[in-house]
Amino acid sequence: MPNQFGPEYVRAIAPYQAGKPIAEVAREFGLDEANIVKLASNENPFGVPESSRHAMAMAVSELGRYPDANGFELKAALAERYEVPAEWITLGNGSNDILEIAAHAFVQAGQSVVYSQYSFAVYALATQGVGARAIVVPAREYGHDLEAMAKAITTDTRLVFIANPNNPTGTFIAPAEIEAFLDLVPSSVVVVLDEAYNEFLSPELQFESAQWVRKYPNLLVSRTFSKAYGLAGLRVGFAIAQPALTDLMNRIRQPFNVNSMAQAAAIAALNDKAFLDKGAANNAAGYCQFVEAFEEMGLEYVPSFGNFVLVRVGDDDGAGARVNLALLKQGVIVRPVGNYDLPRWLRISIGLARENAVCIGALKKALS
Amino acid sequence: MPNQFGPEYVRAIAPYQAGKPIAEVAREFGLDEANIVKLASNENPFGVPESSRHAMAMAVSELGRYPDANGFELKAALAERYEVPAEWITLGNGSNDILEIAAHAFVQAGQSVVYSQYSFAVYALATQGVGARAIVVPAREYGHDLEAMAKAITTDTRLVFIANPNNPTGTFIAPAEIEAFLDLVPSSVVVVLDEAYNEFLSPELQFESAQWVRKYPNLLVSRTFSKAYGLAGLRVGFAIAQPALTDLMNRIRQPFNVNSMAQAAAIAALNDKAFLDKGAANNAAGYCQFVEAFEEMGLEYVPSFGNFVLVRVGDDDGAGARVNLALLKQGVIVRPVGNYDLPRWLRISIGLARENAVCIGALKKALS
Repeated sequence: MPNQFGPEYVRAIAPYQAGKPIAEVAREFGLDEANIVKLASNENPFGVPESSRHAMAMAVSELGRYPDANGFELKAALAERYEVPAEWITLGNGSNDILEIAAHAFVQAGQSVVYSQYSFAVYALATQGVGARAIVVPAREYGHDLEAMAKAITTDTRLVFIANPNNPTGTFIAPAEIEAFLDLVPSSVVVVLDEAYNEFLSPELQFESAQWVRKYPNLLVSRTFSKAYGLAGLRVGFAIAQPALTDLMNRIRQPFNVNSMAQAAAIAALNDKAFLDKGAANNAAGYCQFVEAFEEMGLEYVPSFGNFVLVRVGDDDGAGARVNLALLKQGVIVRPVGNYDLPRWLRISIGLARENAVCIGALKKALS
Repeated sequence: MPNQFGPEYVRAIAPYQAGKPIAEVAREFGLDEANIVKLASNENPFGVPESSRHAMAMAVSELGRYPDANGFELKAALAERYEVPAEWITLGNGSNDILEIAAHAFVQAGQSVVYSQYSFAVYALATQGVGARAIVVPAREYGHDLEAMAKAITTDTRLVFIANPNNPTGTFIAPAEIEAFLDLVPSSVVVVLDEAYNEFLSPELQFESAQWVRKYPNLLVSRTFSKAYGLAGLRVGFAIAQPALTDLMNRIRQPFNVNSMAQAAAIAALNDKAFLDKGAANNAAGYCQFVEAFEEMGLEYVPSFGNFVLVRVGDDDGAGARVNLALLKQGVIVRPVGNYDLPRWLRISIGLARENAVCIGALKKALS
């Protein structure tokens, strides 16, 4: 019987596919959890920083109270770090929440949203969730084709999603290209620049996108604490935008969307430079470790600017699923990306040297 | 300059007014935080249970990982407790999230939502957030007039919100009345039964609404861990409904909406009967404490079935704001309810005996 409830566009949504939890893989393949290597969700291999653990321990006694709905302290810390007024910041339950809030705040059913082929799955979900029409622009070398995206904007377009670096392909767009794009976009179209992986860029590629917000009233920059800051399990993201956009975001935002533990942990992590440095060094080394192995194995990969790398594991459309299963049987969890229309590829998160080595060994075995 | 972004219905939303945080009142009125009594947000005066603290300490090491998107363990615990299949449960970032998800999953712009005058403010926000039309049915003795609500349903109505007990008035609807209402509602209209305050009902008034879900495929029961379970700062709520509704809820739900600390704490709290019993006993005694004081002072109040009580503090429409300010100056935070069209009333949460006594003393002084 067809579902009689809900709008047609809600019934058409395909729910998000999360990475397989370690416990589930252990059950399914009869493995010991301790021997499983999970490189599937672009998580931080060092886990949550000590500074955040300490801050959470201090916050426990207040958990019977509602969180601060305005996130006063966290916003103040972010405002100082990014040199913007606190009133320009919206807090999210992870940057997933920021992306969903943006769709709800700026787009209504029947209008359109522009994003790139092979870009983050939540753009499609957020677009469908408000009954909007997706304009998916073909990628160029697995990354954003900003010229084509600018041309794809129509009179009913209200929102454009850009990921930089992009997930799941790891591609990077140079700042000058993004500024040129922002100059082309009509001022009534909101551009969400999703920088979830920004902190993994090498220093010479870093640029202060938060400062572009001063120039472009239609720009919203989205960031997360889930990757470089190691707080994926706590859910904290944020957006920086001028007051017109921030005001609408906060009308849609659930007042207590970021919980008290998450706020406390994020404030501590934000200034934990040692933790970020350790993560960046590990990531750079781990990327080389994977790339060398792929070269040796003759596997095509997409040069990555994130904490993961997309690698082609075969020449047929069954390759990704087949190799993924062979890895799972060896206790290695990576991410198949058939749902991104990349059925010959796998996305592998960069872990500790030891974890990367286990993954490379399992991949060699799977492909031999 | 009018905001050029976003749908008209988003621009029209008035953001939720949260209770004043203790730190803010201390700053504003030059008071010592330690002396402030906050009875404003229907929080649990015993704070977070010890069982939950212990569970969170165990969960800290996993916070670098994403939360379990399917909430496997928490849903299993809830399924056992409420004797329903785990597949009938949707987890929410507080029940606020459940209410918002329901609006997004079942209603589109231009359709209508029915709820009662003087019922929870989030019903209006969730309705506006999807561009739907609110049909607000006048209350009867400060509670739901279910007969009038059934009659108010039109052909474009897709959702009805019912709060039992109701916030902010504390009124209770007998089970037989709700069943009679459910029998009247067209089967294509979803009824959200919001039972955030259910655990404060005395045992003889308790009824297993979760079992009604078997009979009514259009019923969704919403519950929270923020009140009786003392986890307001962690944000956990859940919904119980048959698969047709639950399936749509999960298409709209953000995959990682409930964080790992919240899931761990909720599992522990769910079976902490001693904590619930202590809270119920304190609440019953505290309610008598307030009611006796109101009788002595000759103040009208609405008999309450929740962990708060609504009291009329004057005969003019400035009374609520005026008495609220007089209480704040004495370091007592309660909730003015002018935004609920109850400008002569204050909502006071039931705290510890000592906190209630401070509040009563301050109220006497304010009214003298």
